[in-house]
Amino acid sequence: MDFTEEQSADVVAASFDTMPDPRLKEVMQSAVRHLHSFVREVRPTTAEWEQAIEFLTAVGKACTDTRQEFILFSDTMGVSMLVETINGAKGDLPEGDGLRPTAPTVLGPFHLTESPVRELGELINTTGEGTPLVVEGRVTDLQGKAIPGARVDTWHADGEGWYDVQEQGGLPAGTGRGLFTADDEGYYWYRSVMPRYYPIPVDGPAGDLVVRAGREPYRPAHLHFIIEAEGYQPVTTHAFVSDCEYIERDVVFAVKSALIRDFVVVDDDAQAERFGVSAPFRYVRFDVVLAPEEGSAPAAP
Amino acid sequence: MDFTEEQSADVVAASFDTMPDPRLKEVMQSAVRHLHSFVREVRPTTAEWEQAIEFLTAVGKACTDTRQEFILFSDTMGVSMLVETINGAKGDLPEGDGLRPTAPTVLGPFHLTESPVRELGELINTTGEGTPLVVEGRVTDLQGKAIPGARVDTWHADGEGWYDVQEQGGLPAGTGRGLFTADDEGYYWYRSVMPRYYPIPVDGPAGDLVVRAGREPYRPAHLHFIIEAEGYQPVTTHAFVSDCEYIERDVVFAVKSALIRDFVVVDDDAQAERFGVSAPFRYVRFDVVLAPEEGSAPAAP
Ligand SMILES: [Fe+2]
Ligand SMILES: [Fe+2]
Repeated sequence: MDFTEEQSADVVAASFDTMPDPRLKEVMQSAVRHLHSFVREVRPTTAEWEQAIEFLTAVGKACTDTRQEFILFSDTMGVSMLVETINGAKGDLPEGDGLRPTAPTVLGPFHLTESPVRELGELINTTGEGTPLVVEGRVTDLQGKAIPGARVDTWHADGEGWYDVQEQGGLPAGTGRGLFTADDEGYYWYRSVMPRYYPIPVDGPAGDLVVRAGREPYRPAHLHFIIEAEGYQPVTTHAFVSDCEYIERDVVFAVKSALIRDFVVVDDDAQAERFGVSAPFRYVRFDVVLAPEEGSAPAAP
Repeated sequence: MDFTEEQSADVVAASFDTMPDPRLKEVMQSAVRHLHSFVREVRPTTAEWEQAIEFLTAVGKACTDTRQEFILFSDTMGVSMLVETINGAKGDLPEGDGLRPTAPTVLGPFHLTESPVRELGELINTTGEGTPLVVEGRVTDLQGKAIPGARVDTWHADGEGWYDVQEQGGLPAGTGRGLFTADDEGYYWYRSVMPRYYPIPVDGPAGDLVVRAGREPYRPAHLHFIIEAEGYQPVTTHAFVSDCEYIERDVVFAVKSALIRDFVVVDDDAQAERFGVSAPFRYVRFDVVLAPEEGSAPAAP
């Protein structure tokens, strides 16, 4: 009956045999085996185990309505990106005549409030600070056919790298966020300011660990998107700014080459007038391709 | 540069190469590899990953000054016991002329307050409820030589299964707890009431998961101890009550056969008078053997 190092994983995994939910049973039994393998490998002292408990407790305590430190920890451990990669694979059709669905990347810890519903073209950062930015794109299916009415949820940092949910930035709620509905041709567009690269919050345990590891705690400049439409697989993704100095060393491992875009500098008053901004401004085109819902009938060729 | 499922563990582990603390580097790189193996094995959907984040956040949020839900989760996942087993092994000398050091077991989530300093023989539960209990024992080294002045920290549930730190039990602080100093012959003793088996708290996420798994959430009746003395390895352990119905199915896997004791029923007024209790009462003898500190000179034979 004594618990031994050799049998611990078997004994504890077996205690979940009675789990009525077969998927949760599978997950918990796998969690037990991997957790016990980890502990047997690193052989923590009791003091080290207590430090691990304190760390995880501090991560939980750092979570508030506007801060999700466990997502941040998952992000910096590459787990969020691994989960996105595993799930994104489902829409990863072979190249051919059709388009590839837009690659997913991490949600990140700042999608904590509902984005305000906005009209196409609306200015989503009215602080008057930063370089003007125009974002436009089209949402289509794998055949390039417009998806009218697709919902485009977007959020991003300001020119100093702050999100509205971060108190330190002092931004009014909703700044840099918007929920848009694509028009009949699948187009969306909005005005904002150029986002800057930013450090993940390093005043909590997850960020602190990154700093202690000697890692640079920066995310390259990007726009966040969640794009959804009935009958299609939603995609959570980013548009990355190609000329950002951190583009090759994202602290959360989220950069994919297919998601990097040139945010073109436009110094032309006629163009500026057309978009209702002042020159010079930056312009990015970010088209989105959605894969059909799984189990839905394949679209005609 | 793209993050792939195959390379994720290597890429993220490499990001910890710059960690200046070599032990923390080893621990984090192992954690990354095992965590990524787990994720690749169970292939969570995004919704499942969000549930895992919510679960861990809820565990952190359930922690208070008097409740440690992460220790409880570690306990119910068998991790605490595995850590104790790995560390206890150091004192696990071959049997021979000497005594085996007392086996360790889990700390548990209720050692959250300092035990009140008490005199030998003191009654540590003065509520007047429950079956009287007398506990005595001797603290010795591997040669059976007394360790005078050993510190004996003890805590246990009452006859209803409550600890003083649990609000629901309504027990005055310090009830069922005591910090004793062994006498010149290494003896300690105290009076209390028989502890009952108890459910782990199931009103939080860790206990809830146990219940959802169809596991019985009970710990067999036991006394907790931490015994320390200068020059010796401290031991965190339990004395388990042999006739408890849950003795073979502890929800935290902490029972070791070497720690089970008969808590003898004594129905004898002379004995009761000797100990200052009323008959019938229960009596247990729990001797403790401490191994020398690592690196200290071996004791003479
Ligand atoms: Fe972001
Ligand atoms: Fe206990």
